[in-house]
Amino acid sequence: MKIAVLGGDGYCGWATALYLSKKGHAVAIVDNFLRRQWDHELGAQTLTPIRPLSDRLRIWQKVTGKTIELFVGDVADYDFLESTIKAFEPDAIVHFAEQRSAPYSMIDRKHAIFTQVNNVVGTMNVLFAIRELRPQCHLIKLGTMGEYGTPNIDIEEGYITIEHNGRKDVLPYPKQPGSFYHLSKVHDSHNIMFCCKIWGIRATDLNQGVVYGTMTDEVELDEALINRFDYDDVFGTVLNRFCVQAAIGQPLTVYGSGGQTRGFLDIRDTVRCIEIACENPAKAGECRVYNQFTEQFSVLELARMVEAAGKKLSMNVEIDHLPDPRVESEQHYYNAKHSKLIDLGLQPHLLSDSLLDSLVNIAVKYRDRVDASLMLPQVNWREPRNDRRLQKSMTARATLGGAENSDVQTGKTKR
Amino acid sequence: MKIAVLGGDGYCGWATALYLSKKGHAVAIVDNFLRRQWDHELGAQTLTPIRPLSDRLRIWQKVTGKTIELFVGDVADYDFLESTIKAFEPDAIVHFAEQRSAPYSMIDRKHAIFTQVNNVVGTMNVLFAIRELRPQCHLIKLGTMGEYGTPNIDIEEGYITIEHNGRKDVLPYPKQPGSFYHLSKVHDSHNIMFCCKIWGIRATDLNQGVVYGTMTDEVELDEALINRFDYDDVFGTVLNRFCVQAAIGQPLTVYGSGGQTRGFLDIRDTVRCIEIACENPAKAGECRVYNQFTEQFSVLELARMVEAAGKKLSMNVEIDHLPDPRVESEQHYYNAKHSKLIDLGLQPHLLSDSLLDSLVNIAVKYRDRVDASLMLPQVNWREPRNDRRLQKSMTARATLGGAENSDVQTGKTKR
Repeated sequence: MKIAVLGGDGYCGWATALYLSKKGHAVAIVDNFLRRQWDHELGAQTLTPIRPLSDRLRIWQKVTGKTIELFVGDVADYDFLESTIKAFEPDAIVHFAEQRSAPYSMIDRKHAIFTQVNNVVGTMNVLFAIRELRPQCHLIKLGTMGEYGTPNIDIEEGYITIEHNGRKDVLPYPKQPGSFYHLSKVHDSHNIMFCCKIWGIRATDLNQGVVYGTMTDEVELDEALINRFDYDDVFGTVLNRFCVQAAIGQPLTVYGSGGQTRGFLDIRDTVRCIEIACENPAKAGECRVYNQFTEQFSVLELARMVEAAGKKLSMNVEIDHLPDPRVESEQHYYNAKHSKLIDLGLQPHLLSDSLLDSLVNIAVKYRDRVDASLMLPQVNWREPRNDRRLQKSMTARATLGGAENSDVQTGKTKR
Repeated sequence: MKIAVLGGDGYCGWATALYLSKKGHAVAIVDNFLRRQWDHELGAQTLTPIRPLSDRLRIWQKVTGKTIELFVGDVADYDFLESTIKAFEPDAIVHFAEQRSAPYSMIDRKHAIFTQVNNVVGTMNVLFAIRELRPQCHLIKLGTMGEYGTPNIDIEEGYITIEHNGRKDVLPYPKQPGSFYHLSKVHDSHNIMFCCKIWGIRATDLNQGVVYGTMTDEVELDEALINRFDYDDVFGTVLNRFCVQAAIGQPLTVYGSGGQTRGFLDIRDTVRCIEIACENPAKAGECRVYNQFTEQFSVLELARMVEAAGKKLSMNVEIDHLPDPRVESEQHYYNAKHSKLIDLGLQPHLLSDSLLDSLVNIAVKYRDRVDASLMLPQVNWREPRNDRRLQKSMTARATLGGAENSDVQTGKTKR
């Protein structure tokens, strides 16, 4: 099968591209390296020393004999996307090419608007390109469990049967996203559902939980293939950050009481879920939604697990409760369904002591690369950066968002 | 009260600005005249000979002694919006300043993306400006009943109580919008709800039905104050179009069987609803949603009513059923609640024979200005304009969307 991986240089995209290539699919990576650019903007780096994509692909070819095609450009640029789709003629498009950090989207107005426009326009371009150029192509779009928020009822997979005043219908599950980023994914979901209906497009919307881990069988083949391991407050996911904090003897930073419960999954399950979606395409006109995670944990439960893993490795791990920079419930009901991918054959890698040990060990291995100043939350939901008050608090990371934001900053400084 | 009417040169905006000014409020119109530009792009004109806004405002001042302030610019331009809000210091912002035509949003990819970016970015700018500059200001945002689609259960006002697996919650009503325009309004609704929650903004989201009529007490004061009366296939609303078709002896163009049922209201009720919202502001952090319409009709019912009104005026009115250019149910359940504005004091102007007579008479009065070629649907939901097939069918209106779309057109012609 010919599979285009949009955003294939990123954390989930890179692991997915290698996995699908290894499985014998013809894979193309489409990427504009914006994710690397954001690291520069934020003054952050992945814990692991990732190599330029051209090196990665050369080594992959050398190690496995398999070639991954590369198209460098922005899916928000339709001319580029059109020429890419025409040249590669994919049977499936796996769409990871979005700004995927909630804190990044909450830095200020410009980052909020950038996130929504970038994500919505990119996805609209993909939809129009499929309709025009590859109407049978299967769109596999990464959504997020965060689209649902934390309702006081069970979370279903995309749709819910509602009985109301004696009548019944199956409707899109009501969404309560918690950041401008999560909102952009909700916008995407509505746009995709509509295009499936009017144009008969095939789509699978994967509402993914929080991903952890960095090793997959493929990236382990050579250190030059190593994947990202983000631990900073903007792009780092919570379990990865805790492992790094444990490795350098910093307290684990739990936001608020830590009762925030979410769905989590191992990156080895991410790549398998994508494969399952590719192998079982949606029907023409179908917009199916799968919840892509394997276990639920509260943030405090995760912190306790890392604490225990650290103890086994003779580390002294403390847990710090910071004021929650987000606006979210710190204690809430959470029960999200996730059986559809299991029914199609997913065999989950559950979070185990041994995995936690290996995660902490990776953090220890690259400990010298850690910048401890990157882990305290700098972005506050209630106070987007927009005036001198906030700039004062940002001395530790004066560059946060500065590259894209110079005119707003100047404007405010003048006041 | 100081009220800024964004989009105050448009159909609903103009009537609203005059009504609120007459009632003694300090009104500012904020507009960039894009609505007039779209007429040029589409080769269409309002049936009524509207005057430049500067003339309108001068006459208003002469006739009533009341001054309406004017700020010319684009709310999608934050610098402009910021300086406007700082200068005018509104207590309420009535936000009509969006691209509001479903067919316009369905012309092609560029019009789809323009609609979503323009509407979403404009509204995000308004939200950030309120937070930063006027945190107590009440946002009154025009949404649309079309956000809900046509579910098989009763439509509630914005939120629905769902009981599911033995638990209960009040959640945003699930949305099934039927065009890229309607989608943009759903995106707005989610963004507004989020900003109310995190920043404590006060918002009223008015999901308006299809508006008809052109006369309000204020615009009747002088012909120079006359309001728009759009009848073309892109911006014309259905009842207005039927009246024009009757006036020039063209068959009324019903799409499909005509069983599509929607909520409708008189423009005199639009302006009163806005006043009611202004007088009863939302609480800090509250995002309330009102369904703003007064009666439900199917399209075929409306056609029959115009047919009957025409007969009384000795006109021979025929009804034509065209293939539906939209993707929508032609027969469906529809029962939408609309009691909240009534509870706050709205006294509806229901669609009566006499109103229909006067609408048809307006159409007769300006009959010489009618361009009959403008009323056949040129935009098809299933086939956005993107290749020679469609261009061939567009000879009657070669300019449709051409101004904004030349590169796409060129690209496709080359194939």
